[in-house]
Formats: sequence, C-alpha cells, structure tokens
Amino acid sequence: MSNADRRAGWLRIVGLGPGDPDHLTVEATRVIAAATDIVGYSAYVDRLAEREGQLRHISDNRVEVERAALALDLALDGRNVAVVSGGDPGIFAMAAAVFEAIETGNPAWRLLDIEVIPGISAMQAASARLGAALGHDFCVISLSDNLKPWDMVSTRLEAAAGADFVIVLYNPASKARPERIFDAFALLRGLKAPDTIVVFARAVSRPEEAIEITTLGEADPHKVDMATLVLIGSSQTRKIERGDGKAPWVLTPRSYGAGT
Amino acid sequence: MSNADRRAGWLRIVGLGPGDPDHLTVEATRVIAAATDIVGYSAYVDRLAEREGQLRHISDNRVEVERAALALDLALDGRNVAVVSGGDPGIFAMAAAVFEAIETGNPAWRLLDIEVIPGISAMQAASARLGAALGHDFCVISLSDNLKPWDMVSTRLEAAAGADFVIVLYNPASKARPERIFDAFALLRGLKAPDTIVVFARAVSRPEEAIEITTLGEADPHKVDMATLVLIGSSQTRKIERGDGKAPWVLTPRSYGAGT
Repeated sequence: MSNADRRAGWLRIVGLGPGDPDHLTVEATRVIAAATDIVGYSAYVDRLAEREGQLRHISDNRVEVERAALALDLALDGRNVAVVSGGDPGIFAMAAAVFEAIETGNPAWRLLDIEVIPGISAMQAASARLGAALGHDFCVISLSDNLKPWDMVSTRLEAAAGADFVIVLYNPASKARPERIFDAFALLRGLKAPDTIVVFARAVSRPEEAIEITTLGEADPHKVDMATLVLIGSSQTRKIERGDGKAPWVLTPRSYGAGT
Repeated sequence: MSNADRRAGWLRIVGLGPGDPDHLTVEATRVIAAATDIVGYSAYVDRLAEREGQLRHISDNRVEVERAALALDLALDGRNVAVVSGGDPGIFAMAAAVFEAIETGNPAWRLLDIEVIPGISAMQAASARLGAALGHDFCVISLSDNLKPWDMVSTRLEAAAGADFVIVLYNPASKARPERIFDAFALLRGLKAPDTIVVFARAVSRPEEAIEITTLGEADPHKVDMATLVLIGSSQTRKIERGDGKAPWVLTPRSYGAGT
C-alpha cells in the first residue's frame, strides 16, 4: 500500500507551558486527550498522565529534526500525533524544527493537516511572577550554541542594548558552549549601566522555581543554567519595594523617559 | 472603618488570549470563576459569560491607570478582583498599568495579594497560524502613540532591522496617530530588502480573522488597523509553499545563514 492509499491523520505541535499544568490552554488539553501518539523529549512527555491506547515516542533533547520526521511519518501513516514542547512551541521550541523538516523532507508532508497550539512561554511566566518586567518593547535572543555564529549573537546584543530594549535570553548556558552567557554579560557590561536590573528566573512555575533580582554589575553568570531565563532590563526597568518581607515587583513602564 | 480594619481581598490580572476561548489557560478559567468582581475594557469583559453575584466594572479602552486604581481599591476593600486583559497582560496590556498605579498610588496597595495570570499573546497565535514565523530571535515593539516619542520608535526599528531580528509591531495604527505605521514602513524599506516577508495578521483566532502574507515592497500599510499584528521577517524568514490550494507556511529557521 503506498502513502497515497492511506488516509492521513493529523499533527499538532503543542505547547505545555513552562511547567505548572495550570498554564495549559483548553485547546492543548483537548488535543493531548485526542492524540493517538505523543512525541517528545522525555521531560515534556513525562508531564502528561498516561492514557490507555495512547502511544508514547520519547526522544533525547538534541534530535529535534529526527523527532519531527518521526512525527510527520506517523501522521502520514494515519495516526493523530501530538508533538509536545515546553513553553510555546513557536518560541525557541519544536515548531521551527518541524517546519524545517518539512522544507527539505518528503513532499507528502506538505499536504498534512498540521497546526501549532501555542503555550505560555518562560518569559511570560517570569514576567508575570515579577509584575510587569516585559511591560514595554523587548528583544528575545537565544544563546543556543550550535545553529548561530557568535558574531550574530553579539551583533544582536549590541543592537538591543544600544536601543535600550528589555533583553530576554533563552538557552543561556548550553552544555556544549557554557561560556556564551559569560561573553554576553561581558559585552552588556560595556554597554549598559551597572545598576541595570537583571533577573535570573529559574524553573518558573515548577517546584524548584528560584528567582533572583539583581543588577548587571552584581549578577553572577555562574548561577545561570539551561533552566534559567535571563532578563536584562531597559534603563527604565525598576523595582517597586513592598516592605513587610515581601519580594519587590519589577516594572518596565509603558512610558519612556523621566516621569512621563 | 479605616482600610486597616478591613480584610483585603485579592487582585488578579488575567490574560484572556487573542480571542478564541480555547486559548484560555486552566488558571485563567479558575480565577475568573472565583472572582467577585470583573474589571476591564468592554470588549474583553463581553467575552465572559455572566455569573450570578459577580459584579462587572466596564471601562473605556483609554483609561488604564484609572481602571487599575479602581481594581486596587476594590481589592483593598475585600473584593476578589479579576482585571481582564486581551492577550497576555504582561505584553502591551494591563499588567504595566496596574504596577504603574501602585508605584505612585496608595501605599496600602503594595501589600495586596496580587498575581499576573499570563495568556497567549497575539504574536503567538499569529506565529502558530503561520507555522513558525517567530522561530528565531525577534523584537517586539509597540507603535502606540501617547507614551513614547517617535525618536525612540525609530531608534528601535533601526536597531532591530540592522541586527536582522524578526520584528513584531503591536498597536500599529492608533486613532490618534495613524501615520506611525506609514513612517515605520518608510523607515524599514530603506533598511531591508523589498522581498522581506511581511505578514498582516488581523484578529487572529476571532471569527473575522484575516491573514495576508506579502513582502516589504508590496505591503500596503493602509490595510493595517488596531486589530492587526504586523510581523516583518528577518532575511532568513521564508515561505513553504504547499500546493493543493493551501496557504503557505512561514518559517524563520533556527539556523542562521545559507543552508546551515
């Protein structure tokens, strides 16, 4: 039987959010329940309750395109497939890997019924926990090591610092290239004031959540690991002290400039 | 009775997502059900089913700080208040307005139990519909007219174009300053190639959704209104044609440079 004889299934690329199941959307919950096959990195698949009759295809974290090809072939073969991804699959997660696979892979994949189901990304959960840290214009940069030359990373950091964006760093400290976050801090310290607000938001919404609010001058990049989102404020980003032993909020106001 | 004699309630700033109720998170759904008072712009409050005993405080779109002060006073007065916001309250929505109000307002507000409940923002729904348009580094800029000088907008657009970020524009065409989107396109056309992918994503996930995939050279800013999210690709952003009358996908790959 050729592929053309088969009735194809569907593929959904589903965002599970940063960790807390309360961040799942109605749509994500429904798609996961309807799937015949779950495909994903073990840390994400393990978040889901096992369901009778639902198959699990667990892969290592470093094989996104192979994982995408497996999922596409399953859908072509009539299965209803949910590729699960942490955060939002569209923000440094599985959506790009799936469409990269499609671009160069089996032409039959292009006719499949494919949808991306967005989820809450780590920067949103971190900003929410802090108050309104992303309250104004911001840039989002991955420090991931293997797909982008350092020159491009440094060009983007310089541009973002020069135009006083809030800067959000994903994948700040990969195992293969742990020095990138040190290089990024060295560069930013030459461009921004030492009292610029910096936040290390680790494992937001998971039991091991840890948030440190510090400054560019004081921040210690040794504390950053792959589970950490790094947020570097604009010149306007500031703390609101609360007293009573409560952690301060972090605000980037909508207005720009003194008191406007 | 003074404020100190009262038992305070709580305040939640809740993201409703771009429109489709399927984008609501578990947490947002639960908080809305638990609130005694809903505060928000009519377009957002109207999305929610009326509940017996739940009060609604509907305000105009242009009075964010007054709305925030009302909500904070209600919480101080013992009410359990949900301020509802489209998209993610942390991304050009109500979170910044609430914390701006706190910063300069009644010191008692700082001790309130306040949480931000993130939601799916328009750029996430648009990128999902397109495939993986935000698949790599991106900048997010509001063109809103009244809180930021044009010089700052143009500096940020130039920096984002110069470093080849994907650029996402929120609030592209306010009633008070409709020319900003024209000025933005004029500036970007001097900095980026005419075949750069541009997307106008209007009312994503709502019944009137309309998505146009065009290029910087061809795009007509007259089509942009306040319900439109504008996405300008990087040099790497491209279409994946599907055939069979299906709309193409839009991909910004994770790698940078030819064929890597």
